[in-house]
Amino acid sequence: MGELSIERDEVFRLRTKRTPGTLSRALAVIGDLGAHIGEIETVYIGAEFNVREVTVIAPDDAAVEKIHAALDLLDGVDVLPGRIDKVAAKHRGGKIAIRPTVEVRNLQDMREVYTPGVARVVQAIAADESVADEMTWRGKTVAIVTDGSRVLGLGDVGPAAALPVMEGKAIFYAALVGVNAVPLVLDARSPEDIIETVVRVAPGFGGIHLEDIATPGVYTVERELERRLSIPVLHDDQHGTAVVLVAAVVSAAKKLGLDLGDLVFGQVGLGAAGSAIAGLASGFGFKEIVAFDPSEDGVARLQEVADPDAPMSAGTDNFDAVVNSSDVLVLTTGRPGLLSPERVRPGQIVFALTNPIPEIQPEDARAAGARLAADGSIVNNVLAYPGLFRGALDARAAHITSGMKRAAALAIAEMSPDDQLLPDALDVTVHQHVAAQVAAAAGAGDRS
Amino acid sequence: MGELSIERDEVFRLRTKRTPGTLSRALAVIGDLGAHIGEIETVYIGAEFNVREVTVIAPDDAAVEKIHAALDLLDGVDVLPGRIDKVAAKHRGGKIAIRPTVEVRNLQDMREVYTPGVARVVQAIAADESVADEMTWRGKTVAIVTDGSRVLGLGDVGPAAALPVMEGKAIFYAALVGVNAVPLVLDARSPEDIIETVVRVAPGFGGIHLEDIATPGVYTVERELERRLSIPVLHDDQHGTAVVLVAAVVSAAKKLGLDLGDLVFGQVGLGAAGSAIAGLASGFGFKEIVAFDPSEDGVARLQEVADPDAPMSAGTDNFDAVVNSSDVLVLTTGRPGLLSPERVRPGQIVFALTNPIPEIQPEDARAAGARLAADGSIVNNVLAYPGLFRGALDARAAHITSGMKRAAALAIAEMSPDDQLLPDALDVTVHQHVAAQVAAAAGAGDRS
Repeated sequence: MGELSIERDEVFRLRTKRTPGTLSRALAVIGDLGAHIGEIETVYIGAEFNVREVTVIAPDDAAVEKIHAALDLLDGVDVLPGRIDKVAAKHRGGKIAIRPTVEVRNLQDMREVYTPGVARVVQAIAADESVADEMTWRGKTVAIVTDGSRVLGLGDVGPAAALPVMEGKAIFYAALVGVNAVPLVLDARSPEDIIETVVRVAPGFGGIHLEDIATPGVYTVERELERRLSIPVLHDDQHGTAVVLVAAVVSAAKKLGLDLGDLVFGQVGLGAAGSAIAGLASGFGFKEIVAFDPSEDGVARLQEVADPDAPMSAGTDNFDAVVNSSDVLVLTTGRPGLLSPERVRPGQIVFALTNPIPEIQPEDARAAGARLAADGSIVNNVLAYPGLFRGALDARAAHITSGMKRAAALAIAEMSPDDQLLPDALDVTVHQHVAAQVAAAAGAGDRS
Repeated sequence: MGELSIERDEVFRLRTKRTPGTLSRALAVIGDLGAHIGEIETVYIGAEFNVREVTVIAPDDAAVEKIHAALDLLDGVDVLPGRIDKVAAKHRGGKIAIRPTVEVRNLQDMREVYTPGVARVVQAIAADESVADEMTWRGKTVAIVTDGSRVLGLGDVGPAAALPVMEGKAIFYAALVGVNAVPLVLDARSPEDIIETVVRVAPGFGGIHLEDIATPGVYTVERELERRLSIPVLHDDQHGTAVVLVAAVVSAAKKLGLDLGDLVFGQVGLGAAGSAIAGLASGFGFKEIVAFDPSEDGVARLQEVADPDAPMSAGTDNFDAVVNSSDVLVLTTGRPGLLSPERVRPGQIVFALTNPIPEIQPEDARAAGARLAADGSIVNNVLAYPGLFRGALDARAAHITSGMKRAAALAIAEMSPDDQLLPDALDVTVHQHVAAQVAAAAGAGDRS
């Protein structure tokens, strides 16, 4: 999924001769070496030369070096020295801060926000704990909890190294839905220790967002926290991903004029994301859900989370059958290039989500007859988790139910522009709509 | 100390006849009933009547009712209906929020603050954890940890009810020294559980501020966390209070032209605050430290924290000797009215800190010959903890040493205006000076 990418964005400061065609030659060299172009900012226009900062999205560090060397060889193009580390500048000192929401200008203000004024609020909460949801920040605050055991595509980096990622998640909570997200990076590895720690800090939070915790431990962590706490708990790598992918499927069907009831939904790979995707899809009225995983554990996990009334067949030896029978085929296998083009059925909708190299390149799938094909780059969890939690917090929901996740997926699909499978992740109106629909689903008492 | 007050601030909306003297008669009634006047805001000026919002600082709820009844009886004064709960409005929704410190306007921004850009920061921290102090918010972030077992003067209210107080502390961290303070209110009671939880969350924080945790458990919590973590740990109720009180003593001596080396410092009561006060004072070169507590535990605690080179005598049966021999006498006994005026030695400096009713009223002490007398209302911890932690964080100190606490007390005393014992707690320049002096003391390698 989008999370696993380890591409590198590098900013080159290019001095180009002011003759037509110079910049485009430089950009062509970059493209020829397999990199994409990001922002281009003109920082100086002179009589003979222009200077521009060109952000290059390179597949890896080696490509950056090759591009640098190739640009240096071009006539009329100089790579100016001095590394421009725009990215480091954005992370330095952290990316979030805590700010007061009330002004304290004088002693009277101080007496109101602190002692003695605060004592009345303390007493009100001591008498009825639910008052804390209104009279403290708890009602709009979640903890983003990780042990750093499975961070991005980088694996087990430990708690401190996970912190910049959690801060990144927190930015979107704050900017998109006004939720305070506190990164809690835990020096704790057993599921039991993580559970115990979260239960102990829970009185200060309105929700628990689990992030980048390795399987299978995270399944225990999520299940036990769900059981022991009466605030929403969500493992984003599973359910955030599932909501966005199912939104993409619903959106695709709508754009193609297809009825979900006519479609077989196939899922290959029942790891954390795959089982959550197929489980969520099972509540959408597809003709059938068919699923394959080489392990019994994967199949069991799907059966645990799926709608028991959905027509479903899942197995460990039905790979061919799933691929052949699916109208919508979703692959989350971790195996690049698994699906050869000749396996694609004409008219199929294919989502090959393994990163950075998918089970099949979308262009190859389309060439082989797929009606629509995409890779993991379309799945941006930022579309789902902010609205999911904001809706759950607004409704004071005790849990995030399947109904609330379905509402989120439908809301995201509804907000997709005509010419895009999914909406812009930074569009605040999208998140407001998701939050409202999730809160409505919670309020409707749908506890399924 | 200031923390224990349970006074009540009530806003009366008064309609007063526009004849000279009406307002002053209303204020006189309030004063006669033992309440102080806070802010007075004029909200309407009419031909015949004015309307004002008068904040009354009443000793308790019963006094508020009496004041209301007395005002109603006054000619030309009406108490308008509708309770004005200014305090509740300030607490509603919480008093702090998390905000991004970087802007995310487009996909390129997103790629820089989140994936893939963040991966490089993650890798740098995974290779060298100390990089997290610069590249995440950790370097300027503390956790404010409590179990809610001893909150203000209210006692054991539990974790959720402690949250508004911790948010209050966090306001001052943010507003005065730009430190992010995350309230962590723990559903954990044994010192072992609190310690374990804090150790597990510690990788995300640059310091641990312990607050409102009951004795004696908090002694174990602070000692063990100091031992197990290499970030600053401070129990504010002990050391914050001690720093401010010692600052007041130093300031008093300076204003009176006294040399600390000529003074005997007496401490009566060696609980959490008292032992910390006498312990800190022992590093200031007083002629002698004399201390009394009825329990051996108190005496042992002082001996644990005191400067071993300081001339000191502490006991469980020397109350009279301490009171009689002290030039500076500090009382933290929890026993209102303990010190009768005839015990005061002419020329003595007396700090009677028990709240809300001190061991001796300052005016009674002064009438009995005390050169200077004050009660707990002068001790505002907001003077100490923000600069202490900011200085420790800036210096990347592993611990808050006695030397750093001494530096804080001296810095606060230095910033006291000529006509005040202590500086204004909301003066940012005071906190900048404290932070700088604490950082210097940390950097000087003073690990005592």
